[in-house]
Amino acid sequence: MNMMFLQELFNNITQRDALLRRRNPEALTPDHGHLVSACQALLASDGEASSIALASRALAIYQRLSSAEKANFFARLASDFAADATQIDEAYAAYSEARDNYTLQILFDACEPRRQELFRRLNLARDGTYELVKMREDLLELLREQPELGPIDDDFAHLFSSWFNRGFLMLKRIDWNTPASVLEKIIRYEAVHEIQDWNDLRRRLDARDRRCFAFFHPAIGDEPLIFVEVALHKGLPSRIQPILVGEENGDDPEDDDTAAFFGISNCQTGLRGISFGNFLIKQVVQELSQELPQLKYFVTLSPVPGFAQWLTEQREDEQWPEALRNTLGELETPDWHHDAVREERLKTIIRPLAARYLVEAKNTKGLPLNPVARFHLGNGAELHRINWLGDISSKGVKQAAGLMVNYLYVLDDIERNHENYTAKGTVACSNEVRDLARRARKLAKGETAK
Amino acid sequence: MNMMFLQELFNNITQRDALLRRRNPEALTPDHGHLVSACQALLASDGEASSIALASRALAIYQRLSSAEKANFFARLASDFAADATQIDEAYAAYSEARDNYTLQILFDACEPRRQELFRRLNLARDGTYELVKMREDLLELLREQPELGPIDDDFAHLFSSWFNRGFLMLKRIDWNTPASVLEKIIRYEAVHEIQDWNDLRRRLDARDRRCFAFFHPAIGDEPLIFVEVALHKGLPSRIQPILVGEENGDDPEDDDTAAFFGISNCQTGLRGISFGNFLIKQVVQELSQELPQLKYFVTLSPVPGFAQWLTEQREDEQWPEALRNTLGELETPDWHHDAVREERLKTIIRPLAARYLVEAKNTKGLPLNPVARFHLGNGAELHRINWLGDISSKGVKQAAGLMVNYLYVLDDIERNHENYTAKGTVACSNEVRDLARRARKLAKGETAK
Amino acid sequence: MNMMFLQELFNNITQRDALLRRRNPEALTPDHGHLVSACQALLASDGEASSIALASRALAIYQRLSSAEKANFFARLASDFAADATQIDEAYAAYSEARDNYTLQILFDACEPRRQELFRRLNLARDGTYELVKMREDLLELLREQPELGPIDDDFAHLFSSWFNRGFLMLKRIDWNTPASVLEKIIRYEAVHEIQDWNDLRRRLDARDRRCFAFFHPAIGDEPLIFVEVALHKGLPSRIQPILVGEENGDDPEDDDTAAFFGISNCQTGLRGISFGNFLIKQVVQELSQELPQLKYFVTLSPVPGFAQWLTEQREDEQWPEALRNTLGELETPDWHHDAVREERLKTIIRPLAARYLVEAKNTKGLPLNPVARFHLGNGAELHRINWLGDISSKGVKQAAGLMVNYLYVLDDIERNHENYTAKGTVACSNEVRDLARRARKLAKGETAK
Amino acid sequence: MNMMFLQELFNNITQRDALLRRRNPEALTPDHGHLVSACQALLASDGEASSIALASRALAIYQRLSSAEKANFFARLASDFAADATQIDEAYAAYSEARDNYTLQILFDACEPRRQELFRRLNLARDGTYELVKMREDLLELLREQPELGPIDDDFAHLFSSWFNRGFLMLKRIDWNTPASVLEKIIRYEAVHEIQDWNDLRRRLDARDRRCFAFFHPAIGDEPLIFVEVALHKGLPSRIQPILVGEENGDDPEDDDTAAFFGISNCQTGLRGISFGNFLIKQVVQELSQELPQLKYFVTLSPVPGFAQWLTEQREDEQWPEALRNTLGELETPDWHHDAVREERLKTIIRPLAARYLVEAKNTKGLPLNPVARFHLGNGAELHRINWLGDISSKGVKQAAGLMVNYLYVLDDIERNHENYTAKGTVACSNEVRDLARRARKLAKGETAK
Repeated sequence: MNMMFLQELFNNITQRDALLRRRNPEALTPDHGHLVSACQALLASDGEASSIALASRALAIYQRLSSAEKANFFARLASDFAADATQIDEAYAAYSEARDNYTLQILFDACEPRRQELFRRLNLARDGTYELVKMREDLLELLREQPELGPIDDDFAHLFSSWFNRGFLMLKRIDWNTPASVLEKIIRYEAVHEIQDWNDLRRRLDARDRRCFAFFHPAIGDEPLIFVEVALHKGLPSRIQPILVGEENGDDPEDDDTAAFFGISNCQTGLRGISFGNFLIKQVVQELSQELPQLKYFVTLSPVPGFAQWLTEQREDEQWPEALRNTLGELETPDWHHDAVREERLKTIIRPLAARYLVEAKNTKGLPLNPVARFHLGNGAELHRINWLGDISSKGVKQAAGLMVNYLYVLDDIERNHENYTAKGTVACSNEVRDLARRARKLAKGETAK
Repeated sequence: MNMMFLQELFNNITQRDALLRRRNPEALTPDHGHLVSACQALLASDGEASSIALASRALAIYQRLSSAEKANFFARLASDFAADATQIDEAYAAYSEARDNYTLQILFDACEPRRQELFRRLNLARDGTYELVKMREDLLELLREQPELGPIDDDFAHLFSSWFNRGFLMLKRIDWNTPASVLEKIIRYEAVHEIQDWNDLRRRLDARDRRCFAFFHPAIGDEPLIFVEVALHKGLPSRIQPILVGEENGDDPEDDDTAAFFGISNCQTGLRGISFGNFLIKQVVQELSQELPQLKYFVTLSPVPGFAQWLTEQREDEQWPEALRNTLGELETPDWHHDAVREERLKTIIRPLAARYLVEAKNTKGLPLNPVARFHLGNGAELHRINWLGDISSKGVKQAAGLMVNYLYVLDDIERNHENYTAKGTVACSNEVRDLARRARKLAKGETAK
Repeated sequence: MNMMFLQELFNNITQRDALLRRRNPEALTPDHGHLVSACQALLASDGEASSIALASRALAIYQRLSSAEKANFFARLASDFAADATQIDEAYAAYSEARDNYTLQILFDACEPRRQELFRRLNLARDGTYELVKMREDLLELLREQPELGPIDDDFAHLFSSWFNRGFLMLKRIDWNTPASVLEKIIRYEAVHEIQDWNDLRRRLDARDRRCFAFFHPAIGDEPLIFVEVALHKGLPSRIQPILVGEENGDDPEDDDTAAFFGISNCQTGLRGISFGNFLIKQVVQELSQELPQLKYFVTLSPVPGFAQWLTEQREDEQWPEALRNTLGELETPDWHHDAVREERLKTIIRPLAARYLVEAKNTKGLPLNPVARFHLGNGAELHRINWLGDISSKGVKQAAGLMVNYLYVLDDIERNHENYTAKGTVACSNEVRDLARRARKLAKGETAK
Repeated sequence: MNMMFLQELFNNITQRDALLRRRNPEALTPDHGHLVSACQALLASDGEASSIALASRALAIYQRLSSAEKANFFARLASDFAADATQIDEAYAAYSEARDNYTLQILFDACEPRRQELFRRLNLARDGTYELVKMREDLLELLREQPELGPIDDDFAHLFSSWFNRGFLMLKRIDWNTPASVLEKIIRYEAVHEIQDWNDLRRRLDARDRRCFAFFHPAIGDEPLIFVEVALHKGLPSRIQPILVGEENGDDPEDDDTAAFFGISNCQTGLRGISFGNFLIKQVVQELSQELPQLKYFVTLSPVPGFAQWLTEQREDEQWPEALRNTLGELETPDWHHDAVREERLKTIIRPLAARYLVEAKNTKGLPLNPVARFHLGNGAELHRINWLGDISSKGVKQAAGLMVNYLYVLDDIERNHENYTAKGTVACSNEVRDLARRARKLAKGETAK
């Protein structure tokens, strides 16, 4: 089918906006009052003849607002575009009398903040969806200081979870044949292991044993929503550095039996809370299985953020054996992992403690403290292996004493793992990890970890 | 950007469904009880690991239901998946005390029927969006007999107006280079002037002076939502038959100064009430203006459904002059338009009466009785010309005494026309039409229409 | 990569030609004298600034020539655009003295007819390649009567075999998602089993168990060069009619173990003698093997043109046993295959005779008389099975007494079969066919075929 | 039309080659003897069943040859794959007797070196065209030392001028949406003004006022053949540095009336002598005229390589006035252009001398000495303006005393300019340049240049 129009559409957006600005500079005065008026006009329009133009104008004004004026605008959104209490009361009164679907529908409509219809109409403008995502990004920034803007965020979240429904996303492979305009976004958005420049990107993407996939949404064109980097590997990889520098892992593609997911990055702050990662991983597992039937293992190589901090907290816990606490103190010696004796000593206690941290340390909801563990275990993966010196970058050493973790996705177990985790908080883990956790319990009692 | 995945996606759907059915025949027993259970399981899932599979299964069961079982299923949707009255009452009580956003949000959620979340989750399945559109098509069929299913339709309408927001639609040109799979849908869906077969289609599409455009939604692939057929023309066309048989209108493309929209067809019954037509016309006007700067007029050649019936009703109105009523009676003579004298006599009174019908005959809301007029006038067009013997097909003669109408879209007037129409019900019309309406008033008083 | 330009290119061709004609009607007087002048001007140009315009003009004139004027033009091509005898003589004299590469190059250039450079320059025009193919089509028509135009055809053949080198062809799948503009060409060009209309086409293409592939050349856009129709099948198919009416061959795609090539059609008469069919079959075998690993057999279901005529000739050969000749005479009874007894009687002798015809009847070069056999055996296929009543259409009965043949492509044998065939004329055949041929020898001696 | 196959084709090439190598390591021994045998086998094959495999093998061996072995291979190509003298003699004898087309055809075939057929068959391999281009690149390198390999190069040139006929090339726009794999080639191949890195590339390509176009050949995929960089500009630009650093030239795109071609780079050494540049410029002029109707001027901003050397030669010419020669000597002062007085003094004499150099200094064929001038004047452009300090990079100062030149393409004059240039060597130039040349004549006589 002819894809020209889509392409053209994206090309034309900037151009037309420029045109609009040139023709109508006075209409775009960047203060929040003007914008509120534009929004009211948009809501008052009947969604037909003039709505697109009004939506474009409103977004054009928004883009030109200063941060302060944006804050003012959001305050007005909260106050002037909420649901109307009187209408709600009347609607409820009618409903509580009639108890029928007709009055319920009216009550439902009355409870919906007018912002939702406003956002739906702003979406009529070319590029509207993306502008709304960016608007929420601004809002999230403000929310930290102004929690009273929360309801606006609820409206965004409600709409976005409908618009960015998995059914509307497109999976695309990212490689060296991908347009530069998309690749530069991959460079910018990589959150786990920073990409230095184009040469670094090429090392990560453009090799026989690399894959990268992203979700896109048709209405926001070449902006990726989330992407995952994969290395094909012979056996489960335990260290990230060889992967990042693009070290070849052997000559023969037929030997690769493992697909290792070594980086998953969300790209759009404005879509926070709209969950794609689990769908992405599972669809990529499917794609890779089809393309490369020889693959046997689908596994992550994941960071353990928060582990070092947890260790520090344990060291301050006087119930712990002093010897243990002293040994842990050696982590503060710079470059401790270059000293073979010290490294070996630390390895003996830190791997068990990591198992304990990941399997047994829980938050108030009874789920693992570690957010990466929560994500993968929630997806139905198994906590498979704890890799000593898996990430010896300064960041890796600092946040996780150099550890990295493999989570294993076994298609036949995903469902069961997921259910046990959701229902009972059970952490699926390998015998090796279970054994490590047992050793940690001994260590905590001052016994030798054997 | 690589479009392979999208393509593949569509190719694979049928195949994978087939696979599912082969592997799991017992899971798909086509009765509504099974389906209700599947839907409950889907709602109970947490939207993550298993949701896609559950959604696929539910839709697969639905597809196999008999009509009777579908009716049973909708009855269950109405009763078991509505909002919960107790929850609403409690939420309102809390809200009416606290009067804050937190309790309002809870009230809003309580008022939302559980069906909406169910539909959002069904959308996770491959092809889910299209299946839901088809499901609503089934529902609309049932609604005629079972108005109590109305609330389900409200939920569909609410979701679809968000999902099929103009911002998500893609305009594509349809021509002889379009895939056959799309073209056969154009043949099937043409609602205004039937397309006989592929040769007929080719006559309509594949000529220098023809254009056709359709809106598509990325999630439902190559199913057009609505399309419009356009003939380029020297001057405003007054008759449909030469256009349908593909009669050339002159040799030199530079002479064409008019784009005539001679057919607008909605394709998806399941999207009834989700309005695209106005957006389509306006975007096509833009596209054509860019492609063919020599175009001066954008005009429709539209049918006048209901006019013949209105005439019949007038004839029965004894307040009308008898002579007039007698002349109108001649419309019942078969092939009246082949008799030059009679035709001329009828022309003198019918064109004025048509103007009266279109401009002055109003429904209870004060808008024109004629639905086509309501559509184009609401879009901001002008009622421009009434064409005698514009459609001499038997359908045209029967429904509109052979009349067709040109509605004219003048970009600079659209906004004003639209506003006057919406605010005051004013019908924008040309001097000629106004003059015809004046003559009709004289005729109605028994005066000669001059 | 952005494919817009290619698409646009094709769209624009007709338009621009129209423009040229409108602007320059006098330059395009359609007589051969004008065209010869235009060709001379094109050859005199230096291939730079003005060549494209001159080439376009020449082709535009050619298109408007009457058949008679085309004949005149070709006569001038033969006489005025040949190689120059004097130059050849001088060049040879120089070469025979110097015997070096420099003089050889000059001799080579002198021997090249000026037509070749003319054709290369005509190719500069938009759509030039296709116009040249059409020009050769005209020439081939004339050649039958005017063999003296042969050298022009040699020049075309020389250039085309370079331009249409396999390395430049693109294989594309043809299916129901293919543009209608291409599909209508498939309907038109199908040469083996006529396609009635679009519904018939759809039956042939658009089913789970059908495939169609074509070669395209980038410079002639959506004009297929050759295509092959394939039916997936459980076991080797023996009859064409069930395939043509689209009879399903079972429900489960996994059961299909055979890809049957049931129609190969050349599309461009102007490319006669430029061989693509062998490459097409082999690449399609590769594609299908990759897509459907369960396929075990790649086989044709081929007609046997000429067999009926050969039988007739045998009947007139008085050395053959009279009983045999009498039985063969029954083929002249209309609808003989509806009479079970007669059919059985004929079957007993005709299948052996077909084996004899295919395996032993040779032309003057020692190759099989039957052209379809020559094609597939030359490609390395094996003559596998002779199917009684394989094609009971009137054409099939008339040309081959209703027989069809399976040629089997076994990847590991292709090379060896091909070599034996080329070197020694050996016909690779199955034991069954060999056995039939043996029976035929007995029959010919008047023995019973057992 | 479905472009998947093309895409896939390119993706698969490396993969399949790898496969071939893995399966058949012994068949690929990299010495020239093996390769010559493979080539002989390829020529002996009948172009059908086994040719593709043989061609792939031969190219795979070639790629693995050392430089020395490549030289040996070319020597064998020259000796063993030439035309056969005996055959030529016999063919000529037959021709000189018969004097007919049949014998001429045989003579022509006899004169064609067997290399040509070899190259045509090598082209059967996937990626064959590109490999042959690379092979010629190797050959050109060797030719400098071994002119006896010249005839091989003639064969390449003969084939390539047919295969890379303008009719087979595709123009594509290069921008920030182009795949990275293509863009990195643009960085590598830019020959006029070096591109430092990806950021530099982005500055050059990705702005409202930049365009870049390249020719591609369908058989060599995403390898550009030649590309041109264009800056849109208000008025004719006179300096290259602001363009290279991406300095904005004003805010309003409507003000741009000039398209300035500031870099044309050939990408494939192996296509040397196959001329595309003229076609590229003219087609880009067409494309830009259509896209941006407000453009009035199409102009280059071109270097003047060789000018500085010519000045040096003049300085040594004792017939020139001594004062003039002394002033020219100041060019040797480092950073002379930073000294306003000196710069002004030099400007007065150097611009006239440049005009003289470009207009009057001719080579032995009576054409301008300067190669850039020859290219653009041969295309029909006008030598329009000589820009003082147009390129103050060290390269620009060194090779051309900092001058740059605008050549102007006026569509209506191109044909006439071209013809005058070709026929009479006339240099089309503006009055200003003509005036400068006149001043230079005065200067040469020791008069003041006024």
